[in-house]
Amino acid sequence: MKPCGEEEEEEGAAGGGGGGGGGGDPWKECLELAVQLALRAGQIIRKALTEEKQVSTKTSAADLVTETDHFVENLIISVLKEKFPSHRFIAEESTAAGSKCVLTDSPTWIIDPVDGTCNFVHRFPTVAVSIGFAVNKELEFGVIYHCTEERLYTGRRGQGAFCNDKRLQVSKETDISKALILTEIGPKRDPATLKLFLGNIERLLKAQAHGVRVIGSSTLALCHLASGAADAYYQFGLHCWDLAAATVIIREAGGTVIDTSGGPLDLMSCRVIAAGTREMAMFIAQEIQTIHYRRDDEN
Amino acid sequence: MKPCGEEEEEEGAAGGGGGGGGGGDPWKECLELAVQLALRAGQIIRKALTEEKQVSTKTSAADLVTETDHFVENLIISVLKEKFPSHRFIAEESTAAGSKCVLTDSPTWIIDPVDGTCNFVHRFPTVAVSIGFAVNKELEFGVIYHCTEERLYTGRRGQGAFCNDKRLQVSKETDISKALILTEIGPKRDPATLKLFLGNIERLLKAQAHGVRVIGSSTLALCHLASGAADAYYQFGLHCWDLAAATVIIREAGGTVIDTSGGPLDLMSCRVIAAGTREMAMFIAQEIQTIHYRRDDEN
Repeated sequence: MKPCGEEEEEEGAAGGGGGGGGGGDPWKECLELAVQLALRAGQIIRKALTEEKQVSTKTSAADLVTETDHFVENLIISVLKEKFPSHRFIAEESTAAGSKCVLTDSPTWIIDPVDGTCNFVHRFPTVAVSIGFAVNKELEFGVIYHCTEERLYTGRRGQGAFCNDKRLQVSKETDISKALILTEIGPKRDPATLKLFLGNIERLLKAQAHGVRVIGSSTLALCHLASGAADAYYQFGLHCWDLAAATVIIREAGGTVIDTSGGPLDLMSCRVIAAGTREMAMFIAQEIQTIHYRRDDEN
Repeated sequence: MKPCGEEEEEEGAAGGGGGGGGGGDPWKECLELAVQLALRAGQIIRKALTEEKQVSTKTSAADLVTETDHFVENLIISVLKEKFPSHRFIAEESTAAGSKCVLTDSPTWIIDPVDGTCNFVHRFPTVAVSIGFAVNKELEFGVIYHCTEERLYTGRRGQGAFCNDKRLQVSKETDISKALILTEIGPKRDPATLKLFLGNIERLLKAQAHGVRVIGSSTLALCHLASGAADAYYQFGLHCWDLAAATVIIREAGGTVIDTSGGPLDLMSCRVIAAGTREMAMFIAQEIQTIHYRRDDEN
């Protein structure tokens, strides 16, 4: 794998598959398996990028799903279920197929098999696997693998966040006029939603943000934030499987992840602001207008 | 360098530094040197990404320039001038410093030392070196190097376009409702310009485009187009040094590069539509509203 080149070198606690130095870490084995599965899924996705043809739509032209989404999700869940039969699962394609999306106190895997499906369909090389893990409704670790760039992002609660073997550190920027902001369009494309989406970008550019980037993968945008390559990210219409792994990684890189209202993050609320500093996150919260999406646990 | 993974393998005519098979190619030596210089510049930029601090602004908060821009441009031009003393140069930082931006019939190098300067400043890993070459006002070859991903894009008129050793082929999509579109914000951020910029995105999303991406580097967006990873690109407010190299690469990958009016490309007009198909380019031309920028040769 390539080094990230975004931060000085440091010995990785979780980068190569380790679960961190804590000898008694009860979830070390889970994190190690998550890393293995993310790398294996990444291989499959890279191969599929050269041959993928079959595409179907979930809810709109912009909300695509492919054979690879299903295949990778089934692979990850079947391996985890065999190893950890008592664990629960929340995953994108299973939810689309009707599974309930409820977070209980049980150990729960929260999985997006192919984040950036629209990119994947177009072979636009910004595609990731995201595997988060929560216990007692608290996020314990996150693993995100940038399939084409072969960057493995990991975060373990209390033990830091890493990209390959480099420790991640968020930006310390508090001034919007020096900020690079990331966002994503979201699946709803009705005129009212588009007005709000574009209006929010307009507000931030009028506030003199250096720029706004839209790369087509929520999880990878959040990884850029964790690495300090951007100062803030916000989105309406993403899902808990886009957020779970990235939230641990960002927090362990020193960042803030909150609700778009400025209050605490609600993983099921389908909206988020993440930033390097609390000041930046609160500025964004005050600037942007809400776009309403149904909660993940209401489906 | 990493392979691009976006197209089936094929023997590269220009990928590794060759100027193509044409034994009598008068610009073979120039192309070979351009490749060497792009790779050398890329090394410098990658190193600078871990240490860059000094930033100044050209015309606005969003139009940044760094020591690295100057250093890389001086390096490239000094080597080329020594080797080809009769050649002319158009380059981003020289123009900002007052050099005239006029394309004559002389062999002319058109250079952007660091495309994606705002990304570079933020260490957002989407940064490129772009070197184009024109004779008798006709673009002969282009070399673009994606510094962090180590992808070398080359195009030689009449001899195809390559990313590393793989031949590039544009998308054949003609239907906007199946299209991934790329654009960039441009340097002007006054309210009227922002309205037009966002209005154009709104029109394309209302026309059911799969998505719009904004990655912060015109040349790399154009390279994605050349590789078939996106179906169209348009922008107002880019410069001839963003366009020169990419135009050859896209045309040699089978794509169309035109003016935003739908007419022929004018390299100095600071506006462009590029697409895999003429139908897609013309659709975009009809949909988008013009944002006025001063021509490069009026400065």
